[in-house]
Amino acid sequence: MTESPTFTPPRGMRDIESMEMSKRNWMERQIQKNMAIYGFKKVEPTALENLSTLEAKSGPDIRNEIYWFEDKSGRKLGLRFDLTVGITRMVANRLELPEPIKLYAISEMWRYDEPQFARYRNFSQWDAEIYGSEEQEADAEVICLGMDILEQLGLHEYEVRVSNRKLTEGYLKSRDFGSKNKIEATIRVMDKIGKLSKQKIIDEFRSLSIEEKTIEEIMDFASLKGKADDVLSNEPQGLEDIGRKGLEELRKLADILDDFGRIDRCVYDYSIVRGIGYYDGLVFEAYDKQGEDIGAIFAGGRYDGLCKNYGKRDMPATGVAGGIDRIMISMEREKLFPKLSQIPQVFVVTVNDTVRKESWNIVRKLREMNISADFDLKKRTLRKQLEYVDSNDIPYAIILGQQELQKGVIKLRDMSKHTEQDLNLQEAAKFISKT
Amino acid sequence: MTESPTFTPPRGMRDIESMEMSKRNWMERQIQKNMAIYGFKKVEPTALENLSTLEAKSGPDIRNEIYWFEDKSGRKLGLRFDLTVGITRMVANRLELPEPIKLYAISEMWRYDEPQFARYRNFSQWDAEIYGSEEQEADAEVICLGMDILEQLGLHEYEVRVSNRKLTEGYLKSRDFGSKNKIEATIRVMDKIGKLSKQKIIDEFRSLSIEEKTIEEIMDFASLKGKADDVLSNEPQGLEDIGRKGLEELRKLADILDDFGRIDRCVYDYSIVRGIGYYDGLVFEAYDKQGEDIGAIFAGGRYDGLCKNYGKRDMPATGVAGGIDRIMISMEREKLFPKLSQIPQVFVVTVNDTVRKESWNIVRKLREMNISADFDLKKRTLRKQLEYVDSNDIPYAIILGQQELQKGVIKLRDMSKHTEQDLNLQEAAKFISKT
Repeated sequence: MTESPTFTPPRGMRDIESMEMSKRNWMERQIQKNMAIYGFKKVEPTALENLSTLEAKSGPDIRNEIYWFEDKSGRKLGLRFDLTVGITRMVANRLELPEPIKLYAISEMWRYDEPQFARYRNFSQWDAEIYGSEEQEADAEVICLGMDILEQLGLHEYEVRVSNRKLTEGYLKSRDFGSKNKIEATIRVMDKIGKLSKQKIIDEFRSLSIEEKTIEEIMDFASLKGKADDVLSNEPQGLEDIGRKGLEELRKLADILDDFGRIDRCVYDYSIVRGIGYYDGLVFEAYDKQGEDIGAIFAGGRYDGLCKNYGKRDMPATGVAGGIDRIMISMEREKLFPKLSQIPQVFVVTVNDTVRKESWNIVRKLREMNISADFDLKKRTLRKQLEYVDSNDIPYAIILGQQELQKGVIKLRDMSKHTEQDLNLQEAAKFISKT
Repeated sequence: MTESPTFTPPRGMRDIESMEMSKRNWMERQIQKNMAIYGFKKVEPTALENLSTLEAKSGPDIRNEIYWFEDKSGRKLGLRFDLTVGITRMVANRLELPEPIKLYAISEMWRYDEPQFARYRNFSQWDAEIYGSEEQEADAEVICLGMDILEQLGLHEYEVRVSNRKLTEGYLKSRDFGSKNKIEATIRVMDKIGKLSKQKIIDEFRSLSIEEKTIEEIMDFASLKGKADDVLSNEPQGLEDIGRKGLEELRKLADILDDFGRIDRCVYDYSIVRGIGYYDGLVFEAYDKQGEDIGAIFAGGRYDGLCKNYGKRDMPATGVAGGIDRIMISMEREKLFPKLSQIPQVFVVTVNDTVRKESWNIVRKLREMNISADFDLKKRTLRKQLEYVDSNDIPYAIILGQQELQKGVIKLRDMSKHTEQDLNLQEAAKFISKT
């Protein structure tokens, strides 16, 4: 006999087992509750997009980081790498929707990354976007939403690091950065501050032909970090207009976050830039202070220029997204999940074949009473059935024998306490439901 | 100024808008409730599988019907076309799980079909599988689960058409069908009975070089349809052993469905064969009698031979799956969805800038009381804010002016009744929650 082959998910992908699924479902319910309270409506963009849609946001370089291919008619398609692109595409031509438009999604995405700790090639995010408001109220709204989601899940030891792309770009412009490309390349290096060693960062700046003095200035700028008031009072010299606009936005935001009672959770941190090209105002990243190794647990920012790439509507926009898988790691570490179970409440055990028909009847009645009930599908002996009940941690067994049937009762066994009582079905159902 | 390009989902794919999303979420909750009552545990296999996994079930022909491609390292990957393959792969090497294993999933899949009515290239199914039981109790269990899901959703005018692959194959074997391939090809034609004209079916049989007399016999066999007792009493002549085994299984199943009080919903119908190759016992398809044009609303059967293809466990298995999108069409036609809303309960309107800060405070307090509350993110005038509230069908507005603030009250406006009352915030929250 030849050995059967063993099949697994592709490299970097994974299945979700039932225990993890219970936790994810529970998390999703909490997140949905918060989204509803904030007035966001749930949608789901298609998972498979035209490659041109994915590139419209991030340029052809994105091809190296995603799963894309040609279908049988030569169409270039790609699996989404985030939810922002799809949701933005969905609203960009819906001329009838009144602004602001507040939408969210919770779903899966795929990236062709090197798999590593807390980073799979398929993963899920919750994602909320506000279209049509250029006000810092909208920015505060998405930050507070992220905070409320974490707190709803029991994660209280977080910190939101805030900056503004206009400020960063204004600062770089005032340092004689000629081309837009060079500014963008510099921002991509700044995004690695804190993730790579200082020497590596400096080397990367040098490879962009940035002068030593300017490198020092950028490192100084990016080291500004602290309470909003302290950081904001320290205005960088010779800022371009765009940079001053960024500072102004950061000031307004601090004001609103203060009024929302949330400023204490925020650290103004000029090293925060976000790697993705389309951000053009607020940028932020939230970290679990007890687990920074998993990376940001939510992040986002303003992308006023994106929407018009996808259709007729040119709307300012701001949003936030968080990784379900990463938040789960934090929650597991801090033991924040409630007791969740997908285990049936009761198993109807049949003593022998003569009562088998009656057992189906009892199972049916229990289920009609919304009790999760299972029964023997393998024609096993009484002993084997009870072993199965035990090994599956099912809390109650109903034991059905000839004698009980004649008396019109059933025997309800508490599997952990090893106690039994004779009850009629209604009483048994009531008893099971209570526990 | 150049026109912006317009981006859409790829051909045959679609986005889910917020109203549809509410309905899908509601449906999923009902389905999950039933799954739990039956003792199924939720899992989710990876969406992107190794192509070899997808082919292990259905052979290399499946490549023509799915989305597959090579990734950047030359790995052949494919998007799942159902949930059965993935769930089966997940259990095939979990030697520690006691039998029977009852798992379900609700998720998306992709097929490279020609898009048509009720058929997209991306769609969702609920799917439940039982591994480790060869008994007809397990077959009855998945059929009853499908029925209970339909009834939970309010669909009562359905019919489940039942047959057995062993019977079909036994019947064909007894008609001098030499090769297994020819039997399979014949079954694929039988699967089209009722979907194509009789003449087309006969032409397809002829193209398989089946004799006229045998074609007639097959058409007669496939026309057997009716109550279980009537159909089963009419045993086809000269059945091979395997065919008699199939009949025996159908008899036992009828018995159990009778005891479960569900036999009246079943039609024994020998034209039912299911097109997919791996079925090897029970096969069934359920139809909405008021909308047969959408195709089967759930279907399934037994596939005892499949599991051993994916790993070390060789377990009998039976399962059922239903299309979310199709069931939605039936439910829309019969107006079965309850009133669902993702609209905020209240919008806090600010009369002018001086009360803006207080409005944030009120929004925060309302949200802390689990009330879905929204507020002005666009610095609009009072009139514009009220227009927005109206056009979004938000039922209540809280109007916040200088005067009210000084009196410590807020004005609650019922948007449809055009009435207003002055209340404190607690009273207003209570009032809003009640409606």
